Amino acid sequence: MTGPTTGTTPATTAPGGALDLNADLGEGFGRWRLTDDDALLSVVTSANVACGFHAGDPSTMRRVCERAAELGVRVGAQVSYRDLAGFGRRAMDVPPDELADEITYQVGALRVFARAAGTDVTYVKPHGALYNRTVTDAEQAAAVVAGVLRSGGALPVLGLPGSRLHEAAERAGLPVVTEAFADRAYTAAGTLVPRRTPGAVVLDPEEVVARSVRMARDASVTALTGEDVTVRARSLCLHGDTPGAAGLARRVRAALEAAGVRVEAFA
Amino acid sequence: MTGPTTGTTPATTAPGGALDLNADLGEGFGRWRLTDDDALLSVVTSANVACGFHAGDPSTMRRVCERAAELGVRVGAQVSYRDLAGFGRRAMDVPPDELADEITYQVGALRVFARAAGTDVTYVKPHGALYNRTVTDAEQAAAVVAGVLRSGGALPVLGLPGSRLHEAAERAGLPVVTEAFADRAYTAAGTLVPRRTPGAVVLDPEEVVARSVRMARDASVTALTGEDVTVRARSLCLHGDTPGAAGLARRVRAALEAAGVRVEAFA
Amino acid sequence: MTGPTTGTTPATTAPGGALDLNADLGEGFGRWRLTDDDALLSVVTSANVACGFHAGDPSTMRRVCERAAELGVRVGAQVSYRDLAGFGRRAMDVPPDELADEITYQVGALRVFARAAGTDVTYVKPHGALYNRTVTDAEQAAAVVAGVLRSGGALPVLGLPGSRLHEAAERAGLPVVTEAFADRAYTAAGTLVPRRTPGAVVLDPEEVVARSVRMARDASVTALTGEDVTVRARSLCLHGDTPGAAGLARRVRAALEAAGVRVEAFA
Amino acid sequence: MTGPTTGTTPATTAPGGALDLNADLGEGFGRWRLTDDDALLSVVTSANVACGFHAGDPSTMRRVCERAAELGVRVGAQVSYRDLAGFGRRAMDVPPDELADEITYQVGALRVFARAAGTDVTYVKPHGALYNRTVTDAEQAAAVVAGVLRSGGALPVLGLPGSRLHEAAERAGLPVVTEAFADRAYTAAGTLVPRRTPGAVVLDPEEVVARSVRMARDASVTALTGEDVTVRARSLCLHGDTPGAAGLARRVRAALEAAGVRVEAFA
Repeated sequence: MTGPTTGTTPATTAPGGALDLNADLGEGFGRWRLTDDDALLSVVTSANVACGFHAGDPSTMRRVCERAAELGVRVGAQVSYRDLAGFGRRAMDVPPDELADEITYQVGALRVFARAAGTDVTYVKPHGALYNRTVTDAEQAAAVVAGVLRSGGALPVLGLPGSRLHEAAERAGLPVVTEAFADRAYTAAGTLVPRRTPGAVVLDPEEVVARSVRMARDASVTALTGEDVTVRARSLCLHGDTPGAAGLARRVRAALEAAGVRVEAFA
Repeated sequence: MTGPTTGTTPATTAPGGALDLNADLGEGFGRWRLTDDDALLSVVTSANVACGFHAGDPSTMRRVCERAAELGVRVGAQVSYRDLAGFGRRAMDVPPDELADEITYQVGALRVFARAAGTDVTYVKPHGALYNRTVTDAEQAAAVVAGVLRSGGALPVLGLPGSRLHEAAERAGLPVVTEAFADRAYTAAGTLVPRRTPGAVVLDPEEVVARSVRMARDASVTALTGEDVTVRARSLCLHGDTPGAAGLARRVRAALEAAGVRVEAFA
Repeated sequence: MTGPTTGTTPATTAPGGALDLNADLGEGFGRWRLTDDDALLSVVTSANVACGFHAGDPSTMRRVCERAAELGVRVGAQVSYRDLAGFGRRAMDVPPDELADEITYQVGALRVFARAAGTDVTYVKPHGALYNRTVTDAEQAAAVVAGVLRSGGALPVLGLPGSRLHEAAERAGLPVVTEAFADRAYTAAGTLVPRRTPGAVVLDPEEVVARSVRMARDASVTALTGEDVTVRARSLCLHGDTPGAAGLARRVRAALEAAGVRVEAFA
Repeated sequence: MTGPTTGTTPATTAPGGALDLNADLGEGFGRWRLTDDDALLSVVTSANVACGFHAGDPSTMRRVCERAAELGVRVGAQVSYRDLAGFGRRAMDVPPDELADEITYQVGALRVFARAAGTDVTYVKPHGALYNRTVTDAEQAAAVVAGVLRSGGALPVLGLPGSRLHEAAERAGLPVVTEAFADRAYTAAGTLVPRRTPGAVVLDPEEVVARSVRMARDASVTALTGEDVTVRARSLCLHGDTPGAAGLARRVRAALEAAGVRVEAFA
C-alpha cells in the first residue's frame, strides 16, 4: 500500500517534507496542573493552548504564551466544549450558533495573551470530544468553522484528513493542516481506532518512536488489523498529559531528526 | 457649596459639557435574561458589556456588540471577579497577578466580538464588588490597570472620581472617565452612601430624573444629610437591571436633552 | 369524548382517578430568576426542584423547600446534566458511572434542605436534555436509576410512559409515575412531537386548559396529525418558565376541579 | 521536654491523650488529581472530604467515602467558598445567609455518598480561605455554624482553638475539636504565622516529624521567634497536596506511635 510514497525523502504533505510537532498545553486549571508545559515547549513546534473551557485559566494562558513566544513555538487555540468537569471529553449537543460563539470567545481570550507576549494565535484545533465529533458531524464542524471565521483572520484548522471539520474549513476558504497520531492505532481505512477498543492506544514508547519515524518518512503505519496504510500528515500530535510525556516527546523528536526529518512548524 | 460651578452652562468635566450615558448590558447568562439590552441600547451612548465572569455568555456578547455597532453605541468591557453564583457582587481577595490576568482575559474575549461587529472595545469599567473594592483598595486597583494595559491599547477606565482605580490608571498613563449615579445617595464628602444604608438608593423616578439634570447642569447633588455637594462627571450611569429601567433611562435622556445637555459619548 | 377510553370516570392511572400537577421550580441561579416559585407552589401538588446543576442555588433550594413544606406540596429532585450555561438542555455523553454519581449528588444536596424544612425528597424527575435522552437511551436511563438507588430510599421516578427510564426504574424495583404534557403536541403513536417541529408547543391558553381536562377525564388527546390517541398519566406537567405560567397553571387546576377531577399528589 | 506541660502522659486535650490525624482528601476535580487519597486514607483517622465547591466531583466523593468506610476512617465535610478557579483560597464577602446555605448544600451532598458507603458525615471543617477567615470573622463563623446546624445532627466542628468559629459552634451547642499543624510556624501567642511570612511553612520532613511528636507528647512547640508555646489539640492536620505528602504522613504516624501516642479519631 505504501508503495510509491516510500523512499529516502520524507513523505509528509509539506513542501520539502517538514513535519510539525504539536501538543496540548496549558491544561491545568487554578491549583491543578496536568501538562508539563515548559518541558513540552522545548520540544514541540506548535502549542495547542487550552482557552478556559475544558482547562486553562488566564494566568496559565499568559505563561504558556510568553514561554512559547520566547522559544519561537507557534500558538494555537485549543477550543473545546464548555465542560471543566468533564475536561471537554463528553460530546454535547450544543446548538450550532451557540457553539460558533463559544469558539469565537475562546480564540479571542487566547489572542489577547498571545499578542501581549509578542506572538499571535495562528491556528485552531478542537479538543477532545469536539475534535472527535467534528470528524463526522457536519453541523458542528460548520459551527466551529463559523466561530473561527468570526474571530477574524484566516486561521488554519488542525485536524484529521478527510474530517467534516476539514471539509467545512476548505469550503470556507480556511487553510487546513493534517495531523497524525503516533500513539493511536489506525484502522485499515486509515481512520483512528476508537479509544475504547482494546489496543487503541500505543503504550510502548519504543513503538511510538518507531511509528513516528515511519509516518514521517514513509507516510505509512501498520493498522491494528495488520495492513500497511498510508497516513499523510503535516503535523504529528504528541500527548502531553501522561507521566513521561515530555521525555517521550523528546525521544520522538530526536529520532525524527536522526532520520533526516525536518521538524518545523507549518507555514 | 456648588457656588461657581452652577450656571446656565452644563458643568460637566467634558469640553463643552457633553454627558455620556452608560449602562450595564448583556447581563444574562444562558437561559437567564436580566437587562433589556435592546431598549437600553437605544438610550445610552456607552454600553458596559458583561464578559462572562459575573454574567454574559458568548452569544449574548455577540448580539449586544452587533446591536451597539448598528446604533453607534460605544462598547466597553464590564470586567468582574469570576463569580457567576454571586453576580460579581462579593468582594474576593484575588491575588493581584491572577486578577490582572482575569481582566486581560475578559477584555480579549469581548474584543473579538466587538471587532467582528465592526466596532471595538473602547473602555473598561469594573463591575459590582470589583468596582467598589477598587475605590479604596490600591493593590486591586493596580491589578485591574495592569490587566487593562496588558490587553493592549490605552483604554480609558470608567470610575469614580478620586478612586484608587483612577489614581492607578493615571499613573499608568490611561485616560480616566469620571462617572456619577443619579439613583444613588451621596455623602456630604461627595462619595456614595453604602448600599446597605437606608436611603442609599433613590427609588422615585421623578427624583432620579431631577437629580440627573441637576448633576449635568450644575455639577451638584443634595447629599443624604442635606448638604449640596459638587459632583462632576463625564458620564452618568443608568441602571438596567430593574423593572422599568429602560423606561426610566429614556425619561432621563429626554429630560437632559430638554435641559440643553448634549448627550454624547466621551472622546 | 372519544371511543372506548371515554366515560364519566376520569381515566387516569391513579386509583380513583386523582391527578397530580407537577412543575419545575427553583430554576433561578444567584441573581437570575426564572420561575414564579411562590405562585406555582400555590397551584401544583408536586414541585420538581432544581438542584444546582442546570439551575438552582442553595438559597433558592432552601426557600422552595420551606414554602413547599408549608403548603404541603411534595418535593422532588429535578436532576440534570451539569450545564448551567446551557440550562441542561444540551444532551451530553456523560459516562454512566459519572452520571449516576452526579444524580446521587443532586438528590443528596436537595434532601438536606427538604429535611431541614420538615419534608423530604419523595421523587426524582430528570430535567431537559436528560429527560429527553433517557426516553430512548437505555444506558443513561440505567445510570439515572443507579444514581437514585444509591441515594437511598425507593424514590419514584417521574417520566414518560414507555420510556427507557421507566423500564430501568421498574427493573430496579423503583415505583414509576407517568406524566403527560397539556402544552405539547403528541404524535399518532402517543409520543411527544420533537420541540423543533412546527406546532410542537401548544401556545393558546384555552387549548392548554381544554387538553388538560380531556387528558384527565378521557385519557385522550388529539395528535398533531389529527388522530385521537390515548394518553394515561398520573401527573400533568405544567410549565413554569414562561410569562403568564402561573396564571395558566391556576386556570388549568380550576378547570380540572370544575370537571370533577381530583387534584392530588401521587401516593 | 519543656517546662510544666511536659510529662510521661501525652498532653493532648483528649481523654487519655489520644490524637486524631486529619488530612484534606478528594481534592481532585474531573480529570485533575491532587491528593493521593488511597495512600493518605491508610494513615489518617479522619478524612476531610472536598464537597465540590473548591474541589471534589461526585465520583471522587463516592470513591473516597467508600474507601474511608472500608478502612474505618472518619468522614468529615471539608466545606468551602464556591471557588473552583481559586481552590477556595480567596476570601470572599459572601452574605451570611448565602454562606450558611452553601455550607448546608455541601454537607448534604457529601452525606448521601457517606451513607451509601455505610458510614456518615461526622464532622465539618472549613477549607482554605474560609478556614482562615472564620478564625477572626465572627459573622462568617456564625454563618458556617448556622449552615451546619441546618444540615441536621450536632456535627463537631474542627478548627483552631480560640477561633471565632469555635466560639460560634460552642454558643450553638456544637462540639468543637481543636487542631494543630506540625508543618506550620506558630507565633509566640500560639497562633499560626501567616503563610506569606518567610518561615511560615516547615519544609524539613525531620522537623515536621519532631514537631508532631512534641506537640502530641508535650503540647508544646517552639515559636518562629524562639519561645516555647503551648499548643493543645485533639487532632493534628497533615497536608496531603504536596509531593511526598503520603510518605511524610506515614512517618509522622509511625513516630507518634513509637513515642507512645495513641492515634485515634475523636469520639
